[in-house]
This record gives sequence, C-alpha cells and structure tokens, in this order.
Amino acid sequence: MVGMAERVRSSRWTREQSETEFARVVAFSDGVIAIALTLLELNFDTPDVPAPQVAAELAALWPTFLSYAISFAVIGALWVSHHSFFAELRGFDSRLMRLNLLYLSLIVLIPFTTNVFDSYGEVPAGPMLYAAVLAAASLVAWTMGRYAVRAGFVAGAARSGAHGSSLRDLVTPAIFLLSVPLALVIPEYTPLIWLAGLILARRFS
Amino acid sequence: MVGMAERVRSSRWTREQSETEFARVVAFSDGVIAIALTLLELNFDTPDVPAPQVAAELAALWPTFLSYAISFAVIGALWVSHHSFFAELRGFDSRLMRLNLLYLSLIVLIPFTTNVFDSYGEVPAGPMLYAAVLAAASLVAWTMGRYAVRAGFVAGAARSGAHGSSLRDLVTPAIFLLSVPLALVIPEYTPLIWLAGLILARRFS
Amino acid sequence: MVGMAERVRSSRWTREQSETEFARVVAFSDGVIAIALTLLELNFDTPDVPAPQVAAELAALWPTFLSYAISFAVIGALWVSHHSFFAELRGFDSRLMRLNLLYLSLIVLIPFTTNVFDSYGEVPAGPMLYAAVLAAASLVAWTMGRYAVRAGFVAGAARSGAHGSSLRDLVTPAIFLLSVPLALVIPEYTPLIWLAGLILARRFS
Amino acid sequence: MVGMAERVRSSRWTREQSETEFARVVAFSDGVIAIALTLLELNFDTPDVPAPQVAAELAALWPTFLSYAISFAVIGALWVSHHSFFAELRGFDSRLMRLNLLYLSLIVLIPFTTNVFDSYGEVPAGPMLYAAVLAAASLVAWTMGRYAVRAGFVAGAARSGAHGSSLRDLVTPAIFLLSVPLALVIPEYTPLIWLAGLILARRFS
Repeated sequence: MVGMAERVRSSRWTREQSETEFARVVAFSDGVIAIALTLLELNFDTPDVPAPQVAAELAALWPTFLSYAISFAVIGALWVSHHSFFAELRGFDSRLMRLNLLYLSLIVLIPFTTNVFDSYGEVPAGPMLYAAVLAAASLVAWTMGRYAVRAGFVAGAARSGAHGSSLRDLVTPAIFLLSVPLALVIPEYTPLIWLAGLILARRFS
Repeated sequence: MVGMAERVRSSRWTREQSETEFARVVAFSDGVIAIALTLLELNFDTPDVPAPQVAAELAALWPTFLSYAISFAVIGALWVSHHSFFAELRGFDSRLMRLNLLYLSLIVLIPFTTNVFDSYGEVPAGPMLYAAVLAAASLVAWTMGRYAVRAGFVAGAARSGAHGSSLRDLVTPAIFLLSVPLALVIPEYTPLIWLAGLILARRFS
Repeated sequence: MVGMAERVRSSRWTREQSETEFARVVAFSDGVIAIALTLLELNFDTPDVPAPQVAAELAALWPTFLSYAISFAVIGALWVSHHSFFAELRGFDSRLMRLNLLYLSLIVLIPFTTNVFDSYGEVPAGPMLYAAVLAAASLVAWTMGRYAVRAGFVAGAARSGAHGSSLRDLVTPAIFLLSVPLALVIPEYTPLIWLAGLILARRFS
Repeated sequence: MVGMAERVRSSRWTREQSETEFARVVAFSDGVIAIALTLLELNFDTPDVPAPQVAAELAALWPTFLSYAISFAVIGALWVSHHSFFAELRGFDSRLMRLNLLYLSLIVLIPFTTNVFDSYGEVPAGPMLYAAVLAAASLVAWTMGRYAVRAGFVAGAARSGAHGSSLRDLVTPAIFLLSVPLALVIPEYTPLIWLAGLILARRFS
C-alpha cells in the first residue's frame, strides 16, 4: 500500500470531487481528538485507602479535576477551531493531510502532559512540558491555515479572516511559547499567564 | 486557529445550511459517549490469585458487574436522550456547542465515578460523587434544552414537548441532586432512591 | 433529557423517514465495537525483565497472542453479523435500540473475559466466563433478530432468511451455552468445542 | 446472527448498490486505526519521582517520544494508504472484509510492539517483534490490493497503478521482513535500515 501512498503525496482533491474522502479525513481527525479527550479520564486514579478516608482522598483530587477541566476545555477549543477550519476548506492535498497528522500527534500527547502537569505543577518541568506541546500544536495549526490559504484551499470570502493570514493569529502560539521560559522562574503562575494571554488575545482579535 | 474560534463563537448555523457541520458535532459527541461507555470495561481488574481461587475471585466481582450494568444503562439512556434532542434540533450555535462540550466532560467522568462507587459504595463519598456528576450532567442537559428552545433551534411541533420547556424536566436532576445529601445518611440505599425516583418520574411524565 | 427519553420509548422510525438517526445508531454501535476490539490490545503487558531475557518472555506470550487472535476474530465476526443485520433493517424502535445497547454491553466485556481466559485458561472459571458472555451475546442477537422480524422491520425478501426466524439460528448460542457446564469438566478443551461447533453450524446452515 | 454471517460470506456488494454499507466498513476501519493511534499515548508513564528530579526523568523519556513519533508516522502512513486504497475500490466482498479485519488486527498490535521496542530497543527481540508485525501488515495490505484487482473491485483507470499489481509493491514488506533477521545481528541499527529502505522505495517507485 505504500506505493499507493507515494502517489497520494502528489494528489490534490477538491471537496466537491470527493466529498467522501474529505469527510473521511475529517471523521478520522474527530475520532482521534474525541479519544484524546476521553483518555483524560484515565488520569483519575481511584483512591486505594480504608473506606472512612476516601472522602478526604477524593477531596484531595481537586487539582486533578482542575487540570481535567482545563485540558478538556483546551482540547474542546482546539476541536472547535479544527472544526471551523475544515468547514472553510474547499480542498486538500497530501501535504495538508500530513500537517494534520502532525497536529493530531501533538493533541494526543495532551492527556500525558496533563497528568505530568497535575503531578508536578509546582516545579518548572510540569507546566513547561504542557505549554511546549500546546505551543507546538498552535504553531502547526497556524502553519496549516497559512498553507491552506496559499494553496488556494480557502474560498475568497473566508480568505481574509482565515488562519495564518495575519500576524494576529500568532498570538496564541506566542503566549504558550513565552510561558515555557517563564515557567522556569514562576511555574505556579503559568496557568494565570495562559488565562491572561487568552483574554487579551480574545479582546484584540 | 484560536482567532477562528473567536469568530465561531458568534456564529449560528441552521441544519439545512450546513448538514455536514451539524453531523460532525453529533458524530463527535457520539464518539466521546461511545468511548466513555467502553472505558467502563477498564474497571474490571483481572484477578491475580492462584488458579484454584479464581472462581471465587470472579464471583466476588458481582458488585463490579452490577455497577457496570447500572452505568452502562445510565450512559446508554443519556445517549438516547442526546440522540433524540439532536434529532429535533434545527440549528445550533457556538454557545450550544460549548454547553455540549461541558455535558460531555461530565459524561466522560462516569467511568471514574463508577469505579469509586464500586470500591466505596458503603460510605457516603462513593454514591455522593456518582450522584453529583449525574446531577450536574442532568442540569447541563436541561440548560441545553431550555437554551435551544429559547434560541429558536427547536421546530414548532417538537417545541411544546422539548427539554427545558417545563418544570417537569427538572425531576431527574432533582432526584440525583437530592440523593447527594441523602447519601450522607444512608449511602447503601442511594441506588434504590435513584430507581424509585426514576420510576416515579416515568409514571408522571 | 430523560423526559425526552421516555417519549422516545414509544417512538418508531422507518429508515427512509430518518436516515440520519438510523445512521447514528449504526455508527454508535460500530464505535463501541471498534473500541472494544482495540482494547484487546491492552491485554498485552510489556515484559519487565532484564534485556537478555526479553526474547524468552515475549515467546512465552504466545497464549496471549492466541487469545487475542480468537477474540479479534470473534468480535470481528459479531461485527460482520451486526453489519448485515442492520443492512436489512427497514426501521427500528426504542425497544430494538435498548436490545442493541444490551448487546453492546456484552461485547464490551470481551476484552476483560479474554484477559481472564488468557490468565486462567486451565481452570473452569476462565473458559466458563468467556463462553457465558458469548452465549448471552448470541442470545440477545437472536432476540433482536426475532423481534425485528415480528415488528415488521425486516423487508419481505430478507425475511425468510433473517435472524431469529428459525430454530437453526439458535445453534450458535446453544454451542456457547453448552460449553459452560462442559468447561467444568474439561476446561482446556473448550476452545476446541467452540471450533467444532462453529464448523458444524456453518456446514448445516 | 452467525447464520446471517455465513450468508454474508458469499455476498458481493458494489459501492453504488450499497454506499451506506461501504461507508460503514471504511468508518469502522478508520475508527480502529484512530484508536490504535491514540493508544500510543498510553506508552508514556508519568514519572513517579520527587519533584526536583522530574525534569531529568522527563528528559530521559526522549526514546519514548522518538518511538511515539515513529509509530504515529507509521500508523498515519498506513492509514493514508488504506484511505487511498478504499477510495479506489468499486466494490467489496466478505473475503476482502476478512482480509481487512486481519490487517486491522495487526495495526492494533502496534502500540504494544512500540512499547516493547521502546523498552528493549537494544536487544534483537524489540526491533524484531516491531518489524515482524509491520512486515505481516504490509503483506496483508499487498494481498488485499492483489485480491481487489483480481476480483474486479478496482476500476480500469486505477488498475494499472493499484496495489498488488506488480512486484514493486512488495518492496515495503520485503524491507520489514529482511530487517527481522538483521535485527539479530545489529538491533540498534534497525530503524536506520527501515529509513534507508523507505527512502530508496520512494525514489524508485
């Protein structure tokens, strides 16, 4: 099948020509994102203590609930973006497909980085790994948007507002990227930096 | 992609305009619910005992089978509701999409709360956590129904009977909510309260 | 949403009226079966031994590979059956949907029963649990087929050959059911009984 | 349902006759591949060390990241091939469906073989198991392509370039197959052999 894959690399499909193939790429991406979202649940470990202590143990899980909520919201927001990006696409080629796979490979890491962040949030390594993966994912998303516009896969009307068409769209990757070195100095405030950055980004975009 | 996501927040789609996008939201939700349902299986731990004792060990798993059956039925019923709710929708917007993600984030917790309920059913914490997550999910479902009717996403005929249109639809969240404090006093009877409440709710609705 | 679910219980859809709803039930079932199939992989534990001994450890995993292959084939065959059953359906109602959920709840147990069978194949409990779950699943499948024919959900041409229309279709559940007590006496030959039974069933049907 | 499955074995569908059934097979395969891809994430174990040492522990995970990236790329490439193979299909029968299930059963093993490769990359067993599963998957893919062409499921235009139509398509299986004995001698260079082989295969095909 690899010989086939080679030929695919030079292929280019419009959405009208092959709605089925387009839908399959979208459904596959959705499947991967949905599974990554659901695997976040595996970060909850059922306490293994005598019954009378379980209430206290569950209460002590609040940082796990918090990091679950943050990551669910993050993956959810990334899915909504992915959703609206593909809704605007009028075609795709194998390069866009590979960028999409690279994007997915970063999303799939989030349950792991969430678990590390949850267990080691107070030292730099926890938030740094978390922010680094999200910064990389944001950059790949930006690259996908930029490439889709340049390759003519985004229709005229949607073009001016599309991903990657302006520097403004680099704000989110920049926030996550900048938080990586900042986590070295003030790891416990990294989530606040993300929040402040995202509120600012929303206000000015 | 976040700049795109921002714009999405003010968007509004009708089902006719974008059947593909609508189907994608539904398929994504189904995917998440299907995975949550299947992850219930991970609550079964293969016994690790000498071979002659395995029959007794498996027999001792009956509460795990029971809580598996309860949660499979609960998630199944929630999926049927979600199914019929989306079947009536004539459109959706980004607010409904975020409510849907919030709903899913609660459903995804059920395999964990099932495991806690299974391991700590005799103390209040086990059933309380289980009931609290279901009460929250029911409330979010009620909010979604209410919002969809008010925003005009439910067609005329289906409107009078739709979710959130009457106080009657608050019965289920109320049962789960009330069982939370009751679990403090009589944890071992909480499943009976759910059962009685749901039979009553079915009879009078 | 439960109020909605109640009403669903008395509903009845034809496939033509609501192809989207029908497709959603099928896709949801496929999703659950696909995840159950993939969770079989989690039964493989990476050896934790000094590097020079890993080859021997991996070679010793052959019963795990064998039970993986058997269960993959079993779930695959069940999926093909489910596939062809739904391909013939011209409609469905909420009762069929609940039978379908019950069927899925048994399929989802297979990764667990496979693991138990793999770890405790030489004592009765291992093959008994495995066969009991498959017997139950076969019986539910037979009930679904029978109900669908009686409720008029299967078109004329397909009717005579449909599930549950004759005693012949009870052969598979019977084989699995009979192997449960037989496993008490000769546990290590249970897979052979299944194999022989299925070959006979295929020849005479 | 097995009686039904028997009859399926002699069936043959064209894509036009039953687009829904065809789409279901494709969606099921995609689902299984997407889950296998996402289960790769479970190979990351969150370190369990005192907080100050976690940075060093995470840095020491780089071979896990590398093997994750390799396997994500491999499964991604296999999915792209599967995607383009099914895009060309004009029909299928039950034999192709069973070959497809066999193919999927090998793909699903990749998260496990990746974990073994990651843990025991320096002894022959690790890369041998990894390469053997991929060689088997490639051979099954080649068989599927060959069978589809012979059975007339591939349309005229696509036929000459289709899978299995020439010896050239055996290059990939051959590379993986040859690397199995080579891993006995030089296990640590196996990934280089794969890389070199794939670059050569791409250049001459």
